[in-house]
Amino acid sequence: MPQDIYDRIMMVAKRRGFIYPSFEIYGGIAGFYDYGPLGSQLKNNLENLWRRFFVLHDKCVEISTPTITLYEVLAASGHVEEFTDLTVDCLKCQRSYKVEDIIDKGLSVEQAMNEDNIRCPTCHASLHDAHPVNLMFSTSIGAGDGRKAFLRPETAQGIFTNFHLLYQFNRKKLPFGVVQIGRGYRNEISPRQGTIRQREFSMAEAEIFFDPQDKTHPLFPTVQDKELFLFDNINELKMSVADAVKKKVINNQALAYYMYLTQEFLLQAGVNPKKFRFRKHAADELAHYATECWDAELHSERFGWVECVGIADRSAYDLNAHIVSSSVDMYALRPFDEPKEITTKKIIPKMNVLGPRFGSTAGKIKEQLETLHPSTAKKITVTVDGEPLEIPKECYDIVDVTEKQSGEKFVPHVIEPSFGIDRILYFVLEHNFVEDKKKEEEYTVLRLTPKMAPIKAGVFPLISNEQLIRLARDIDDTIRKHGIETYYDESGTIGRRYARMDEIGTPFCVTVDHDSLSDHRVTVRDRDTTKQERINIDDVASLLKTKLSL
Amino acid sequence: MPQDIYDRIMMVAKRRGFIYPSFEIYGGIAGFYDYGPLGSQLKNNLENLWRRFFVLHDKCVEISTPTITLYEVLAASGHVEEFTDLTVDCLKCQRSYKVEDIIDKGLSVEQAMNEDNIRCPTCHASLHDAHPVNLMFSTSIGAGDGRKAFLRPETAQGIFTNFHLLYQFNRKKLPFGVVQIGRGYRNEISPRQGTIRQREFSMAEAEIFFDPQDKTHPLFPTVQDKELFLFDNINELKMSVADAVKKKVINNQALAYYMYLTQEFLLQAGVNPKKFRFRKHAADELAHYATECWDAELHSERFGWVECVGIADRSAYDLNAHIVSSSVDMYALRPFDEPKEITTKKIIPKMNVLGPRFGSTAGKIKEQLETLHPSTAKKITVTVDGEPLEIPKECYDIVDVTEKQSGEKFVPHVIEPSFGIDRILYFVLEHNFVEDKKKEEEYTVLRLTPKMAPIKAGVFPLISNEQLIRLARDIDDTIRKHGIETYYDESGTIGRRYARMDEIGTPFCVTVDHDSLSDHRVTVRDRDTTKQERINIDDVASLLKTKLSL
Repeated sequence: MPQDIYDRIMMVAKRRGFIYPSFEIYGGIAGFYDYGPLGSQLKNNLENLWRRFFVLHDKCVEISTPTITLYEVLAASGHVEEFTDLTVDCLKCQRSYKVEDIIDKGLSVEQAMNEDNIRCPTCHASLHDAHPVNLMFSTSIGAGDGRKAFLRPETAQGIFTNFHLLYQFNRKKLPFGVVQIGRGYRNEISPRQGTIRQREFSMAEAEIFFDPQDKTHPLFPTVQDKELFLFDNINELKMSVADAVKKKVINNQALAYYMYLTQEFLLQAGVNPKKFRFRKHAADELAHYATECWDAELHSERFGWVECVGIADRSAYDLNAHIVSSSVDMYALRPFDEPKEITTKKIIPKMNVLGPRFGSTAGKIKEQLETLHPSTAKKITVTVDGEPLEIPKECYDIVDVTEKQSGEKFVPHVIEPSFGIDRILYFVLEHNFVEDKKKEEEYTVLRLTPKMAPIKAGVFPLISNEQLIRLARDIDDTIRKHGIETYYDESGTIGRRYARMDEIGTPFCVTVDHDSLSDHRVTVRDRDTTKQERINIDDVASLLKTKLSL
Repeated sequence: MPQDIYDRIMMVAKRRGFIYPSFEIYGGIAGFYDYGPLGSQLKNNLENLWRRFFVLHDKCVEISTPTITLYEVLAASGHVEEFTDLTVDCLKCQRSYKVEDIIDKGLSVEQAMNEDNIRCPTCHASLHDAHPVNLMFSTSIGAGDGRKAFLRPETAQGIFTNFHLLYQFNRKKLPFGVVQIGRGYRNEISPRQGTIRQREFSMAEAEIFFDPQDKTHPLFPTVQDKELFLFDNINELKMSVADAVKKKVINNQALAYYMYLTQEFLLQAGVNPKKFRFRKHAADELAHYATECWDAELHSERFGWVECVGIADRSAYDLNAHIVSSSVDMYALRPFDEPKEITTKKIIPKMNVLGPRFGSTAGKIKEQLETLHPSTAKKITVTVDGEPLEIPKECYDIVDVTEKQSGEKFVPHVIEPSFGIDRILYFVLEHNFVEDKKKEEEYTVLRLTPKMAPIKAGVFPLISNEQLIRLARDIDDTIRKHGIETYYDESGTIGRRYARMDEIGTPFCVTVDHDSLSDHRVTVRDRDTTKQERINIDDVASLLKTKLSL
């Protein structure tokens, strides 16, 4: 197979310290990658740019929760049941495959299964008995068998399970957003798409909680006239944010606002706008928790259109699930203009039945029953000491209670923009990887935006002269003290040193020459224009800060 | 039990959004904590300060590798064998304990075991048969039984297994440092010390590779006259960095340099210098990989002296282990002044024996044998397709080979400063938690340094007047555009709003009043002096930047 762009990028990425296959000295394993010094810095820059958009600008708050997640959380969220891939095992060669990966193009999984002609891509045996396999990595906490747990499939559940505390943090006002940046895990059956399909990956997720009666966003007016690139699975449409909402292409303002924010973020990260679109999920594609979802897709010369961000309306799915499973009050309050007499159905526990039947746990059961809403609890199950317990009808009454209330309880809805950081990072590389020739030699320039570039400035003495070296090192130290990453280099011709910086995307190079010793000036070269300007040494750090908009 | 400082801090931490117990709605589990909005920001600030010291100043490079780690890596590093706690199980009540936690004070584990009088702290049954239990969380990768793996007990192994690539990245020069910040895992038997002993935690580790013949550091002269606080398990000593090395209290310059860097980092993070010391590990305390280790210990009113950073000389332990296990060339080269004729022992595979005996794998065996050094390989084992294979003597010769060489191969030594981020974060809270009374009411101020504070500035309109609100919101937006975290607040008296900011450690508050509308000036209040100054609105962001040294 001739090398395509992916192979060429990964070759440079390994040689120059962006990306290494993990555990390579022990033979490696599909789906795991290390970020080397430049890759790790690029990833930090990407995550910090994301924070600029979602934390500083949109005023979401960030939290950080464990990757190990208790079974109970993921049972409640539906992941134990639903987070699966349909899998077939080859009885002849003992390999396993995700059905979707090995059926003929154009066939749906159902068609392929019905036609019963799935064959092992390795040994060509006929394959049967496709079955769902859960994709979570499992582990256990504590000694012996311990408590069952998984590595989180998404960071979102760490946010949902703290909703009541976060609602209090935001002083009980909606809407508000909470974000988390961190590792997610997906135990793929047999991943085959390099860095695009990893088993351990970095995600940045935002969960924005709304009153379902008011899915507007305070900043919507600032974006309504901007253009979105949409694809409804048939046509590509360009339309304003406001039009997309008005024509019901996008269901509500909040969803449309976060789509635009996502687009702006991706473009500022350096994604090629011509290789970018939003695609709407068809009904049969939606995740178990979503009512509407748009993917931000980026185009790769090797992989075609790839989902890099999903922006989903998760409605009240998750909070409802955790209210039912945990019996904790995770409602929000919609205040009335003035207090009202309200008649609601309430559960009144009968202690004279609960007491004799449940003994010492009756008190705990009573407490939980009182927090439940009859409307959300289809069957009444409480959890006592980690065990679910069904409570029969005769243990409680459901009665109409009239009370003066200051507002109405409800379960907030959630809009979730969820970003795959590693995929975006790969596309930032592919979309900015410019291959050229210089004097018959291959010459690559990585046209990263200055904000993304892992190294902001190369610092060189023109020749290896002691005085020049000392001055160049001083300048290097000064720039770093301003928090700007540099790369000091004194070896090879100046052309060679520029080439090394161009290949890793360094936007500026600062060169000290003999004149610098007398005129206290240095040459600053711009990667993209290759123009050079001569400036005072004392101004170098502040010039860089301005160019980098720090 | 009356509330002590830990309880009081954790109460504020939960109420104000610093730290929540994880999975609390499902009953929680020991050893897992969530960082809420303020805790997460504090943690980011701490990690970024650490980067300032280790990446920008010390010029280490940062990498990022998976938390899931192949069995082979941790078998080679010794963690499968050695990363254990001596544990006893109670046959009566089915609980398990770490022996160290339940024996009488003053007894060593050996003494307690010999005296045979360990009793279950819960049911008082007599306990026997203490046995080592491995503390790694295990999981498996892929379908079916999959490949055995663990969650990493330290981030360091991700660095060691990439040494050859990182050495190449640093253009084959020593010393150089590589850091990683991320999650580590330790499946504690039954953790009982709150946030001090977590099962999933954040670490920041630096591995600095040295030529064992030259454990000096280029920046040593800049720190040699500074003072270190040392404790040799008997006496507390204050001495200069240079003296500590000269008197052999600390074994080498490199170790002493990183101890000083650690001290500076902790003090800048806001640790109380009177509650800080370095304690030397006694020989029987050393981890399996260390030849010398100093702990940076911080003092807590509840927990006493607690290890928060370990600074270890890991010598060549890890790289040697991976060279032996993987057969990959992970040596460094010490260049000669000019090329020399060198006679070394080499392994010469005998293909006429290997071929018939190992068939198609003989080629792979040959390749590996040729990279091995007879001196490091006590028994010759190669790894083919993931399987270890012992190669008998008759398959190869060891011969003296004389070659012209440009340098001498050696295995670098490693100095490792390893930071427990969560513990340091807790101590930053405890050492800066100031409890006071104001008009008979409890009043707490968190005296975080401006760099650590999660919120840098509160922004308030003096009263809820539409014009003041609009101006305050504009100022708030402007400050945030400069990358500075703010908290806008318009509810309650101004004293109440100051108090809320003091409690979470916000160093500055900006108040807009009626005069602001005409004189374009606002009041900036300093948390620690409570002094107020009146400044031009256009200067607010730059004033804050200066105060925060951004």
